[in-house]
Amino acid sequence: MNASEEKPGANKRAVVLLSGGLDSAVTLAIALKQDFCCDSLTFVYGQRHQREVASAEAIAHQLGAARHIIVRLDPVLFCGSALTGGQEVPLDRSTDELSAEIPATYVPARNTVFLSLALACAEHSGAFDIFIGVNAIDYSGYPDCRPEFIKAFEEMANLATKASMTGAGRFRIQTPLIDRTKVQIVHLARELRVDLAKTWSCYNPQAGDKPCMRCDSCRIRQRAFEEAGIVDPLTEGGTSSLS
Amino acid sequence: MNASEEKPGANKRAVVLLSGGLDSAVTLAIALKQDFCCDSLTFVYGQRHQREVASAEAIAHQLGAARHIIVRLDPVLFCGSALTGGQEVPLDRSTDELSAEIPATYVPARNTVFLSLALACAEHSGAFDIFIGVNAIDYSGYPDCRPEFIKAFEEMANLATKASMTGAGRFRIQTPLIDRTKVQIVHLARELRVDLAKTWSCYNPQAGDKPCMRCDSCRIRQRAFEEAGIVDPLTEGGTSSLS
Repeated sequence: MNASEEKPGANKRAVVLLSGGLDSAVTLAIALKQDFCCDSLTFVYGQRHQREVASAEAIAHQLGAARHIIVRLDPVLFCGSALTGGQEVPLDRSTDELSAEIPATYVPARNTVFLSLALACAEHSGAFDIFIGVNAIDYSGYPDCRPEFIKAFEEMANLATKASMTGAGRFRIQTPLIDRTKVQIVHLARELRVDLAKTWSCYNPQAGDKPCMRCDSCRIRQRAFEEAGIVDPLTEGGTSSLS
Repeated sequence: MNASEEKPGANKRAVVLLSGGLDSAVTLAIALKQDFCCDSLTFVYGQRHQREVASAEAIAHQLGAARHIIVRLDPVLFCGSALTGGQEVPLDRSTDELSAEIPATYVPARNTVFLSLALACAEHSGAFDIFIGVNAIDYSGYPDCRPEFIKAFEEMANLATKASMTGAGRFRIQTPLIDRTKVQIVHLARELRVDLAKTWSCYNPQAGDKPCMRCDSCRIRQRAFEEAGIVDPLTEGGTSSLS
């Protein structure tokens, strides 16, 4: 696929969820390439791997989001997950374990909350397109990354809002990575000149300057870079993907 | 209806959206009467009539919520509404005007955001019941108060969450007031011993100790009290509804 071919946006506004990881960075790049004027939205919700928030800011700046909004949410609503300190982030899980169950890193209703706040932002700014980098192939088994959830959210959004009564337009939840493998996403990142050195996927709060390479997120990312034959700039020996 | 007859809760947990107005207070009273152990959730989202937040706290205490949580949201996401300062709160509108269009007090995606955060809270606490005091009869014409919106949200919620993959249960968005008139809600408030003097429905940020009696919300409330033949304890000459 050549993501630069489509231009459905023509400078219409869009809201893009941007966590700071690989997938959301590529999603923002795709939305911008499609000529959307993008507001990127990053959430601080008590995640212990807060390094991703600085990554999101750097990516929004590098790729050229029109506005980057950091939204702080009360951590009390999201406690109980390994990402927010309720339990330990699982490490060194095998591929079989990865796909066996919903992992401890699942955060209750996270994508529902993020998409809802994106919808509020979109309705106010006049955007009808909301981009989210969910992926149904190489993912962690979260319920709120599945296509059926996205479809149900879109239907709900089109009953929740003013435009559903006035006929002004329909909201679209855009998931350009939904059927991509992680390897394809790595290739897309290079094609769209996403600076991979600025992304952060690691869930481990103990990680220092380098990702831990032991949590699910690191392992899924590592496998994809290896398969793609590309050195991850975040790892030992890696250099900027733009160099 | 005798709301005290049903006991489907049997001390199961529920999350109740509590704005501090008449409808949400009665909704909390119904949930408690049904034997749910209730967490009430109130949002500070930049509304200029912040007096409702103190009312919500007083009602949660009076009625006996197990836990009252005040959630602060970034006002930047909700600007543009008359409630958040984007425009003036309309005053002295006639009954015809009230039903003609979506009013300036509509807040983009507000109920979607509130229900999403309630869902996060419910999923963490083990609740499957979320109560919201929406009303499809005497209401302000907001899209996110309609039964079709509630149904779509419930469907989405049951795809968004862990329980939808494990089969542990189904979320229910409970709307006990959906088909009640405002007069019936006033009667229910008395039956369930809601201290109406503690509620606050007025949208007007200029209101002092007494409601303005000119905004849509005041006018709908006033009409209901008049029809019910009850003096609103918030108005001149009113006394506590529990006295």
